[in-house]
Amino acid sequence: MNVDMIRAAAERNDGVVRRTPMLWSPFLDAIAGRRVLVKAECLQHTGSFKYRGGRSAVSALVAEGETRGVIAYSSGNHAQGVARAAAEHRLPAVIVMPSDAPKMKIDNTRALGAEVVPYDRATEDRDAIGAALAEDRGLTLIKPFDNAQVIAGQGTAGLEIAEQAAEAGVTEGDVLICCGGGGLTSGIALALEAEAPRLRARPVEPQGFDDVARSLASGGIERNNRTSGSICDAIITPAPGEITFPIMKRLCGPGLVVTEEDCLRAMAAAFTHLKIVVEPGGAVALAAALYYPDAVEGDAVIAVATGGNVDADVYRTALERYGDPA
Amino acid sequence: MNVDMIRAAAERNDGVVRRTPMLWSPFLDAIAGRRVLVKAECLQHTGSFKYRGGRSAVSALVAEGETRGVIAYSSGNHAQGVARAAAEHRLPAVIVMPSDAPKMKIDNTRALGAEVVPYDRATEDRDAIGAALAEDRGLTLIKPFDNAQVIAGQGTAGLEIAEQAAEAGVTEGDVLICCGGGGLTSGIALALEAEAPRLRARPVEPQGFDDVARSLASGGIERNNRTSGSICDAIITPAPGEITFPIMKRLCGPGLVVTEEDCLRAMAAAFTHLKIVVEPGGAVALAAALYYPDAVEGDAVIAVATGGNVDADVYRTALERYGDPA
Repeated sequence: MNVDMIRAAAERNDGVVRRTPMLWSPFLDAIAGRRVLVKAECLQHTGSFKYRGGRSAVSALVAEGETRGVIAYSSGNHAQGVARAAAEHRLPAVIVMPSDAPKMKIDNTRALGAEVVPYDRATEDRDAIGAALAEDRGLTLIKPFDNAQVIAGQGTAGLEIAEQAAEAGVTEGDVLICCGGGGLTSGIALALEAEAPRLRARPVEPQGFDDVARSLASGGIERNNRTSGSICDAIITPAPGEITFPIMKRLCGPGLVVTEEDCLRAMAAAFTHLKIVVEPGGAVALAAALYYPDAVEGDAVIAVATGGNVDADVYRTALERYGDPA
Repeated sequence: MNVDMIRAAAERNDGVVRRTPMLWSPFLDAIAGRRVLVKAECLQHTGSFKYRGGRSAVSALVAEGETRGVIAYSSGNHAQGVARAAAEHRLPAVIVMPSDAPKMKIDNTRALGAEVVPYDRATEDRDAIGAALAEDRGLTLIKPFDNAQVIAGQGTAGLEIAEQAAEAGVTEGDVLICCGGGGLTSGIALALEAEAPRLRARPVEPQGFDDVARSLASGGIERNNRTSGSICDAIITPAPGEITFPIMKRLCGPGLVVTEEDCLRAMAAAFTHLKIVVEPGGAVALAAALYYPDAVEGDAVIAVATGGNVDADVYRTALERYGDPA
């Protein structure tokens, strides 16, 4: 797993994956007390960065010429990324999704042509379900983060961040990344190591689901006590991955942890000042940038807004509580 | 007024004005029954395309070296565009704003450093107020649309649309533009005439405020009966301009008219499928593209999402009514 795989993924994804904009606003700078750049991956096709990895992995499989179809387990964003990439290559796709995933994500995954198999996040093991189905039907499993081609695809966002930050005059500081299993975080970290070594990747997680922050602190893989019951559904995973964790351990700064309430505040701030729709799990990095200034170093901070697939009622709650900036 | 002025404005604005992305989603294509491309000007600095014209006009004045400050009358988006451009050039800015403009627009205009002078949209004449203040304080008036350098700035969006549509494989069809006084519509029309002559600019307005559609139909300038009482505040003007109308008459296809309810639906569709925040007046073009398919010609349609400066309560209403796609 190295930056050359990321560069190869960027070539395969070129012209298909969207180069998302880097946004900013003087109003966010004022809140944070430093310059804030936001990489708007919510504007990616399928509404999250996951299409980068899905497309990278599916196109690599197709190039090898052996697959009869793909299977993935996902709370929704990886599902949509893989479903779209599979449909583009006319491959069947089966997606194992938690039954409490946002309705929008389940609906969209089906609409993209995939077969959705629901499971109970609290009592069932998605890895086991995915592995059994893969064997049964001869499908290739595309894991959501512990897959080198997926990490390579997510890392293409890091190549863009390095370029766009430099264009904006930022070459030093923390890059805050909403982190589940670490696919995006480790991919970006590898890209930054090669292209912008003074930008430091740092994972951000919601309170109570901070397995990566604790793992980085202890030096070994730590697990979450529970993997359901958060509005940040997109980034709730049992533990960092076997491929992703060593990369994060080598390259990433300490993890940050934010409250769910601050995610809702950050969603409202993105609504008001950037005009982008961000989902709770996609807002943890922006929340850290805006409301945890002492946990960040440097004159500028970059936050990745990783996704925008949020149900309308959750979004309305965010606006009801924080939509009117006082 | 010609495309060379637009190209000159694009040079002055280069690196300052954001090149906004062209977005699309298979879900929107399915609603419209044809391909839909959305130029996301809500992601422009200050949350609307108006910064293009404000920056173009202020930078032209500064280049001439004569101005002591600027004044503008605006329901909010032009206000913010001019205020930001003036602040960037360290010029004082006075903005005459209707007292019923969205609170967010008034607050942001003040926060950008401008002095806000409120007026009653139903009973007072903003042109007269603006002219008197300009004379009094020796300020240069920057009209919101009937100003050649403003039109030139707005037209830079048209240069980008021509390029981005071609990149997406679209060289023929209707370009639907949210239209108030016609600054953006006429600017884009001039740019398309030069750069993409098979793309046709067409103004879109809300029902009851369709002065431009009626003017294009009759061949002479027609006025609105009222200029308040619409959620589409950003694009409510008394009549098309003396500079803008002859350009629109020569180059634009027939105007389209949509209901306010369809604007709210389009806002929710942009939330769900594009992850961008669009204000009611900025959603009329997308509403026409999605819900008035018989009024549009061709296999593909381009809609400009002109702004995203919407108060949270209006946005919540849109999501409450249309946020859960059935």
